[in-house]
Amino acid sequence: MSANNKQRVAIIGSGNWGSSIARVCAQNTIKHSDTFEKEVRMWVYEEMIEGKKLTEIINEKHENVKYLPGINLGENVVAIPDVKDAAKDATILVFVLPHQFVYGVCGNLRDVISKNCKAISLIKGLDYKDNNLHIFSEEIERILGIPCAALSGANIATEVAEEQFGETTIACQDSKDGELFLKLFHTDYFDCTVIEDYRGLQICGALKNIIAIGAGICDGLNYGNNTKAAVIRRGLLEMRKFGKTFFGGVRTETFFQSCGVADLITTCSGGRNRKVAAAFINSGKPIEEVEKEMLNGQKLQGTTTSQEVYNFLSARDMTHEFPLMTAIYRVIYEKAPPEIIARDLRTRKVVVDKE
Amino acid sequence: MSANNKQRVAIIGSGNWGSSIARVCAQNTIKHSDTFEKEVRMWVYEEMIEGKKLTEIINEKHENVKYLPGINLGENVVAIPDVKDAAKDATILVFVLPHQFVYGVCGNLRDVISKNCKAISLIKGLDYKDNNLHIFSEEIERILGIPCAALSGANIATEVAEEQFGETTIACQDSKDGELFLKLFHTDYFDCTVIEDYRGLQICGALKNIIAIGAGICDGLNYGNNTKAAVIRRGLLEMRKFGKTFFGGVRTETFFQSCGVADLITTCSGGRNRKVAAAFINSGKPIEEVEKEMLNGQKLQGTTTSQEVYNFLSARDMTHEFPLMTAIYRVIYEKAPPEIIARDLRTRKVVVDKE
Repeated sequence: MSANNKQRVAIIGSGNWGSSIARVCAQNTIKHSDTFEKEVRMWVYEEMIEGKKLTEIINEKHENVKYLPGINLGENVVAIPDVKDAAKDATILVFVLPHQFVYGVCGNLRDVISKNCKAISLIKGLDYKDNNLHIFSEEIERILGIPCAALSGANIATEVAEEQFGETTIACQDSKDGELFLKLFHTDYFDCTVIEDYRGLQICGALKNIIAIGAGICDGLNYGNNTKAAVIRRGLLEMRKFGKTFFGGVRTETFFQSCGVADLITTCSGGRNRKVAAAFINSGKPIEEVEKEMLNGQKLQGTTTSQEVYNFLSARDMTHEFPLMTAIYRVIYEKAPPEIIARDLRTRKVVVDKE
Repeated sequence: MSANNKQRVAIIGSGNWGSSIARVCAQNTIKHSDTFEKEVRMWVYEEMIEGKKLTEIINEKHENVKYLPGINLGENVVAIPDVKDAAKDATILVFVLPHQFVYGVCGNLRDVISKNCKAISLIKGLDYKDNNLHIFSEEIERILGIPCAALSGANIATEVAEEQFGETTIACQDSKDGELFLKLFHTDYFDCTVIEDYRGLQICGALKNIIAIGAGICDGLNYGNNTKAAVIRRGLLEMRKFGKTFFGGVRTETFFQSCGVADLITTCSGGRNRKVAAAFINSGKPIEEVEKEMLNGQKLQGTTTSQEVYNFLSARDMTHEFPLMTAIYRVIYEKAPPEIIARDLRTRKVVVDKE
């Protein structure tokens, strides 16, 4: 906390989503000025835009011209090129950066963060290492030694920046911290619900991208609504089963939240994972090539997550327990006929489900 | 049962969905000829098509040229113009007709059905009378004095007839009957799951049409993905709350079935309720007029169900407990500004949900 006991917020990341969320926080630090310092620091990886530093542009124009053009972030968002400077003295760190940078950034922060600091992770995906899947909020807790909550939902960044109504989910084990994060994120147009199940929330955020690839395969095959609805539903069930099987504390109610069913629906109807997978089906090319052609350097998360989850399941001899995610992997990486996306969902043995 | 103890199937209804489902049953009565009589009788409301009786056309061409053109129903589907003749001696009655005809038809059947007969209802909607909502399978049980199961799912009739892969849900309280219905309906392309919660299943089938109107209102307002995802998710929660509040035995798992989340997704992305509501928003006309212009005599179910649910909730002073369904009613029937669809979803009091 600062001298006057107010919370001091730093956003670690400044992409499309990071900039949108900085704007939300900056509105709330003004609104709840009894709780927060008005200034919201945002770490910006420095780059040159037409000969000028991006941080300087942001601090003059209050706009991230590269990643969220046309949107005023608020005068109290201050761009800072050094991550240690941005995080120093902060009592709330909002992690919103591509997952491959998490360990490097956390390593840098370890020595500068204050003892009473807490964090919240908006990072998508799970970390696969040593044949295990790790949850980023837990990784941040481990490395920095501070509590870390998580936020995820059916949130297209630009729509949040335009103040279109939407919902999100915050997962936090400490109810006092939950109230604080609500104050920081909840607005009239960004409706937050706080739950405790931070693992379920982050599993949804990662696995939905695999299911979206399945939806894209259906689209590529010109399959109808019944098939696509079946793929999305089975996807939701496999996400839940995966969470409950391999991670403690995962709850069914989490899948009814914005981070669950709502984000899954959005990702399976729009979204780049769906789009690239649909194009891949009729291309005859490897997925990496289609990805490159269509995304202009951006990366698909669904494909790598699919691979990691498949390896994780294989190592445990459990691929047959997750037929949809397994079929998606085989279509993308093993040249399996795409039709298995529906074929492998057929229940071979008819079971009367007693619930 | 017939003399040789085999089950005898009659389909009560022969529209688009009735004809598709007759075709599914006719495949299974051949496949499981130890259990079923091969012949599947289908009651067809007689009409003249180019000077010829529809029943005769169906029995000669094995095609319902009016309601499911281009699809061979199977030679063992026999069209019968008299509902009593169709149902006589049947041991399984499959009700698949518009809900306004249920009471009339059941009245006709009361005296002819055999004592060991059972039924399954594919009727959509709930019946509103005496300020109460009634579930059709229970109405059929009451009138005919036989057990009645129910079937509902994310099933576009034509896609089922084309054998595109899809799922459905059968709700049945007796597990032996459940096995029998599985034999009658389950195929490689029509994947059935049996549950016990027949009330939840039928509530989903009725209320999803209201939520689809909400999705259509979003589309009419050009709202983005975040808002629409929020409306669908809140819709799912209100459907569940409605079921659990007013009907016994409704279970959360039902909403994960094809009859729940999958059918809701399909209805909110395609579907006539969504389409007409979207057109209504910018028309300046009453919904009935838009319906007439767009549907060529077909009726919306979402609008009447919305009205009935609103009356039901009003009589109990509980409209505020279901803000989404209430907002949808007010936009459609009370000229409320359509923007309340999102505005009324805002949580006015921020609550930390402990699950």
